[in-house]
Amino acid sequence: MKLALIGFGSVGQGLVRLLIEKQAALAQQYGFAAQVTAVITRSRGNLYHPEGLDLSALLTAAEKGSFAGYPDSPDLRRDISAEGVAAAPYVDVVVEASPTDLRTGQPALDLCYTALEHGKHVVLANKGPVALDFVNLMERAKQCGRQVLFEGTVMSGTPALRLAREALAGAVVSQVRGILNGTTNYMLSLMEQGRAYDDVLAEAQRLGYAEADPTADVDGWDAAGKLLILASALFGRTFKLADLDVRGIRDLTPEDLRAAAADGMRYKLIAEASQAGGSVQPVKLPVSHPLAGVSGANNAVTFTTDVLGDVTLVGVGAGGLQTGFAVLSDLLALHRHA
Amino acid sequence: MKLALIGFGSVGQGLVRLLIEKQAALAQQYGFAAQVTAVITRSRGNLYHPEGLDLSALLTAAEKGSFAGYPDSPDLRRDISAEGVAAAPYVDVVVEASPTDLRTGQPALDLCYTALEHGKHVVLANKGPVALDFVNLMERAKQCGRQVLFEGTVMSGTPALRLAREALAGAVVSQVRGILNGTTNYMLSLMEQGRAYDDVLAEAQRLGYAEADPTADVDGWDAAGKLLILASALFGRTFKLADLDVRGIRDLTPEDLRAAAADGMRYKLIAEASQAGGSVQPVKLPVSHPLAGVSGANNAVTFTTDVLGDVTLVGVGAGGLQTGFAVLSDLLALHRHA
Repeated sequence: MKLALIGFGSVGQGLVRLLIEKQAALAQQYGFAAQVTAVITRSRGNLYHPEGLDLSALLTAAEKGSFAGYPDSPDLRRDISAEGVAAAPYVDVVVEASPTDLRTGQPALDLCYTALEHGKHVVLANKGPVALDFVNLMERAKQCGRQVLFEGTVMSGTPALRLAREALAGAVVSQVRGILNGTTNYMLSLMEQGRAYDDVLAEAQRLGYAEADPTADVDGWDAAGKLLILASALFGRTFKLADLDVRGIRDLTPEDLRAAAADGMRYKLIAEASQAGGSVQPVKLPVSHPLAGVSGANNAVTFTTDVLGDVTLVGVGAGGLQTGFAVLSDLLALHRHA
Repeated sequence: MKLALIGFGSVGQGLVRLLIEKQAALAQQYGFAAQVTAVITRSRGNLYHPEGLDLSALLTAAEKGSFAGYPDSPDLRRDISAEGVAAAPYVDVVVEASPTDLRTGQPALDLCYTALEHGKHVVLANKGPVALDFVNLMERAKQCGRQVLFEGTVMSGTPALRLAREALAGAVVSQVRGILNGTTNYMLSLMEQGRAYDDVLAEAQRLGYAEADPTADVDGWDAAGKLLILASALFGRTFKLADLDVRGIRDLTPEDLRAAAADGMRYKLIAEASQAGGSVQPVKLPVSHPLAGVSGANNAVTFTTDVLGDVTLVGVGAGGLQTGFAVLSDLLALHRHA
């Protein structure tokens, strides 16, 4: 399987690390072998080699901040673009792991269509395309006889989508409800101990959980993007941000949290959707509720089903290696069904 | 897909109910259609019809306690045995849902081999065969080019095995830890409120959670059987009861539970295994632990993995319809890979 990586940040590098570490086990257990034939980055340069790039040399060059030091060889090309890669002959799967844009989904969205039209499968870690254009994208994939997979867009490597769509096949999911943003969950855990919003935000930024501009996390937009993806995948229509009522944690005070605790309750930023629509908002849950016990940077999701009632999955919600694993699990799924 | 049901208790009837209710949806979504061509019971009689039995008439006859009232037709046979069914021409899958015997696995175990040798797939709700003879059974299935699936043997329809073996494919699971018996979990929840062991056992029996002979539940053998299955499936060798240290909840007192609560701890009957072996025993967990929050008759399992850390699944642990759903999900998996 020949892969083109669009973006080579923590997710792309995590994937490459796993391909190196797990090479022997993946070959033995699943008969799976992959080559990375192209890597496209914003600032480090681009690489394309029909017979596959050297994975260790890729990681070394990336750490140095530029592919300039990646060893030359006769068939190596450095002048290829993302669009060129999406149409290139020695690419079976385009892995889109460039930064998410939840307003337009671009430039990843156009690239997905280009890749499908050139007979490539698409695996997304980038949330934009599948959050904004789910139905059209899936329809085009079907027309092209290719697949678009996106396990890494929700809860990183914790297999929320694969649980709902494969392991729960045959059940009808009527509602999805979860904690989909680890940064705010971590912040709420600290605020419960009486610390102020600004103080815990600064700590989350220091730890690298929150960005310098924390809007996407604290105002609920990151969770909303993931909820759009879950809802679209479960209910089979494109959900739009306008279908969601989104409110973040910015207005919560340590006093709110203490008052809740006095009532045996705990605030969580809950993302929730059914066929009719959904919301992201702080919700007071009884401390005995399964989602109330999800602490720190963990994520969780509860699927309400017809036959089984509630099925809840709890696990890590972020991380380059973990999201790289999600991409790998999508590649294994493509390999299984090939 | 032509099914033979061995056993027609709550699981077999649950499966048939789902096949009726979900017939249209399963055909439309997955192109799946199943006929039940045989049903074998201990006390209600046996039925075999090459073109499929009438599912509603089956349920009606079962409710009346005997298949004597099931309508006759020219090709209907009432004289077929379980062994006969395992070798019969109009059977693709043998569904073993007769009562579990954790000492010998019989008569289900022999029947599994007979079915495989006659080219049938086997789907188990009965824990015995796969708890006692995992490796041989899987090897014979491979030799016969057939599959043995057993999602319903652990956590009923909550897809613990499919999560570990399919959704987490590519990750290495080093440990499994869970609450695998709903009866004792329910009893412990009540004992925490200060009620005595005998009192809560009587209530669990009244509600139908515990059998008249509660040994399998309260002494940990039911959980141990499920742990053998999980451990064998995850670690690829046959675990034996001798590999497990099994202790139930019989010796716990309300005082033990209250003392734990005073320390911010909670007792759970925890089943736990790694490559080296395992145990079933009451364990004191901090109330903030994900498994400590699993209440009532729910079950939960945590897989400790190399890349993702802990991944926890929580859901219903028992029930005829729910275990019937697990069988259905195995049938859908056979259909997908056919």
